Amino acid sequence: MLPENMLKLGLNRSAIRELFEYGKKRSEEIGKENVFDFSIGNPSIPAPDCLTNALKELLENEDPVLLHGYSSAQGDAGVRAAIADQLNEDYGAKLTADNLYMTCGAAASLCISLKAVLLPGEEVLTFAPHFPEYKVFAEGQGGVFKAIEADREHFQIDFEKLEKAVTEKTRAVIINSPNNPSGVVYSRETLEKLAALLRHKQEEYKREIYLISDEPYRELVYDKETEVPYVPAIYANTIVCYSYSKSLSLPGERIGYIAVPDCVKDSRNVYASVCGAGRALGYVCAPTLFQKAAAMCTGKTADIDIYRKNRDMLYGGLKNIGYECVKPDGAFYLFVKALEENAEAFCENAKKYELLLVPGDSFGCTGYVRVSYCVAPETIERALPAFGKLFEEYAAGGK
Amino acid sequence: MLPENMLKLGLNRSAIRELFEYGKKRSEEIGKENVFDFSIGNPSIPAPDCLTNALKELLENEDPVLLHGYSSAQGDAGVRAAIADQLNEDYGAKLTADNLYMTCGAAASLCISLKAVLLPGEEVLTFAPHFPEYKVFAEGQGGVFKAIEADREHFQIDFEKLEKAVTEKTRAVIINSPNNPSGVVYSRETLEKLAALLRHKQEEYKREIYLISDEPYRELVYDKETEVPYVPAIYANTIVCYSYSKSLSLPGERIGYIAVPDCVKDSRNVYASVCGAGRALGYVCAPTLFQKAAAMCTGKTADIDIYRKNRDMLYGGLKNIGYECVKPDGAFYLFVKALEENAEAFCENAKKYELLLVPGDSFGCTGYVRVSYCVAPETIERALPAFGKLFEEYAAGGK
Repeated sequence: MLPENMLKLGLNRSAIRELFEYGKKRSEEIGKENVFDFSIGNPSIPAPDCLTNALKELLENEDPVLLHGYSSAQGDAGVRAAIADQLNEDYGAKLTADNLYMTCGAAASLCISLKAVLLPGEEVLTFAPHFPEYKVFAEGQGGVFKAIEADREHFQIDFEKLEKAVTEKTRAVIINSPNNPSGVVYSRETLEKLAALLRHKQEEYKREIYLISDEPYRELVYDKETEVPYVPAIYANTIVCYSYSKSLSLPGERIGYIAVPDCVKDSRNVYASVCGAGRALGYVCAPTLFQKAAAMCTGKTADIDIYRKNRDMLYGGLKNIGYECVKPDGAFYLFVKALEENAEAFCENAKKYELLLVPGDSFGCTGYVRVSYCVAPETIERALPAFGKLFEEYAAGGK
Repeated sequence: MLPENMLKLGLNRSAIRELFEYGKKRSEEIGKENVFDFSIGNPSIPAPDCLTNALKELLENEDPVLLHGYSSAQGDAGVRAAIADQLNEDYGAKLTADNLYMTCGAAASLCISLKAVLLPGEEVLTFAPHFPEYKVFAEGQGGVFKAIEADREHFQIDFEKLEKAVTEKTRAVIINSPNNPSGVVYSRETLEKLAALLRHKQEEYKREIYLISDEPYRELVYDKETEVPYVPAIYANTIVCYSYSKSLSLPGERIGYIAVPDCVKDSRNVYASVCGAGRALGYVCAPTLFQKAAAMCTGKTADIDIYRKNRDMLYGGLKNIGYECVKPDGAFYLFVKALEENAEAFCENAKKYELLLVPGDSFGCTGYVRVSYCVAPETIERALPAFGKLFEEYAAGGK
């Protein structure tokens, strides 16, 4: 008599987790250096020194009763002010502490934002390929989840499909740029077209449609010419969901925030609803030590140049071999065309060469595989010949 | 068009928060030492040295990529094993790592447990006076919340009322011992009677009724003869929700756990449902640094002897003056009979003497006030004359 959906979520491990466990087992059998595990999106570079120093300093100098005590539910006021200042400097964002709500990471940011705006049965749209848990988060908060196929040439938005998908029940659209799993960054042009379409739909249906911008990879872009625009300046009804998991390499510590800018319609009420949703989901406050440490590191990131080198080596290597892949501008993933239609079969076959890849099916996009390059550079070097053999097998028709 | 319940939760600050803000303002006006703020349940004693040392040691010696990386969703296996061992030693609990699920504190433990077992519209019972957020958590997970009045002599369970309240829709009963706000600890006898009643109802309705034991104050008991029994040994279908907020003085850091012992019917499925509910609510994993630090401090607590001294001074002082109050065996609260029927009016009047008390109405129990004694001992010393004046006013019929 348990709720079936919860039981199913608990029993069915994600394909990514399964692969990760397989990789651990295989490493024990043949040695870690001989397994090329590209399955997990776990940052491979350490938190920056500023973060470790901030933590030590806080532990050394602060009164532990205050340091580890409850903050207000929306987060420490000083912390929020510091983050607002940085966003204003970076993007001309015009935020204050009152626009920010500190969270236990991106997943919490998304669940709270969705719970804050969704009425039962309202629709949440996103674009495939997408982070698989979006479906879990949307349905967990009572929403109906719909994924819209992306244009497969550039993995930007397919506006014809979007136009048809938005209905009078659509309450939220989730975007994720830089994207997991494609690595693609939405251009300003894409975002402007998206904004125009959503504004039009808002008028048509006489109701708010919130753009939920999931930005854990915001700082992970590798070329000077790549712009990651500040979305609320393009579409007013935008709620920004952020996490320090990737920028500060802190995925296990669960620290991030929600920004509800003043340009959002009835901004103060939306913010209040966010506070209410946080209460209803059991988020009392974000971890206080990491709130303070993150605020002491505004504007800093881990050494993401390592990811850029990984991207260049892996993207260049795979293209040289003959693989098809859109060039990723950010995040730490490549989305590579599988060499047979069935990406799951392709990934199964790749295991023969000790290559652990995640089928795009997990991201709502068949025929592709995700390759996470948050790995040691040596892993890429050693893996490229294996990618080569896999390609030859298909080229020779041996498969 | 925002969800009304979320908006309302966000806009209506709790009475406790309101009082706390009033206290801060008043402190600025007349000096902190002249305001007797007994409103908040924020630990007043620092985290123990073992905790601070564990944090420093982890930051000094561990690889930051592993230290701050994702743990498995249910928590680090070594951490869970260490906690299981301690519970086995303390209570003969027969737990392993597989029975434990690490959480972001007690509120998360409760929300996840409720989401794991509740079907829409099923009932969650608890006993008034109760922590006000139980209602928010139960309704937030789709449940119907009912509070049963306690016996007002000893604040143990009124079994006649409970018998009538359990229906074929009851799925969970929350207990909280030591109790916020009464400080009362449920005796073994109370728990055995509760277990017998629930077993009977399970048979009658042919369905599971889970006892959710919310135990953040488990270690905060002050007399040798006070036993806090291990609830699953008394009632099999018990889910234990724990938090280190009070025992290690870490309320802002959000670290705790859920225990689903093997004696729970279909224990593995209930555990899986807990994992599923954690996913659906956006709890990716509990903060990893504090998972590890808490595991290094199993069996330790902050110096709770200070609370015992506070309890004795405040309880003794109030009884001497003439107040009626059940003697609290644990937690850090006194639940005192108001001197007029309307506890809200009484608390308003107490402000004249700079005494900040929380009306029992917030806890579903009229006619009483909660007095939190997690304060500096000097605050109690200086406040007792004010309590005296307040009492005299009522005795003289001046109010």
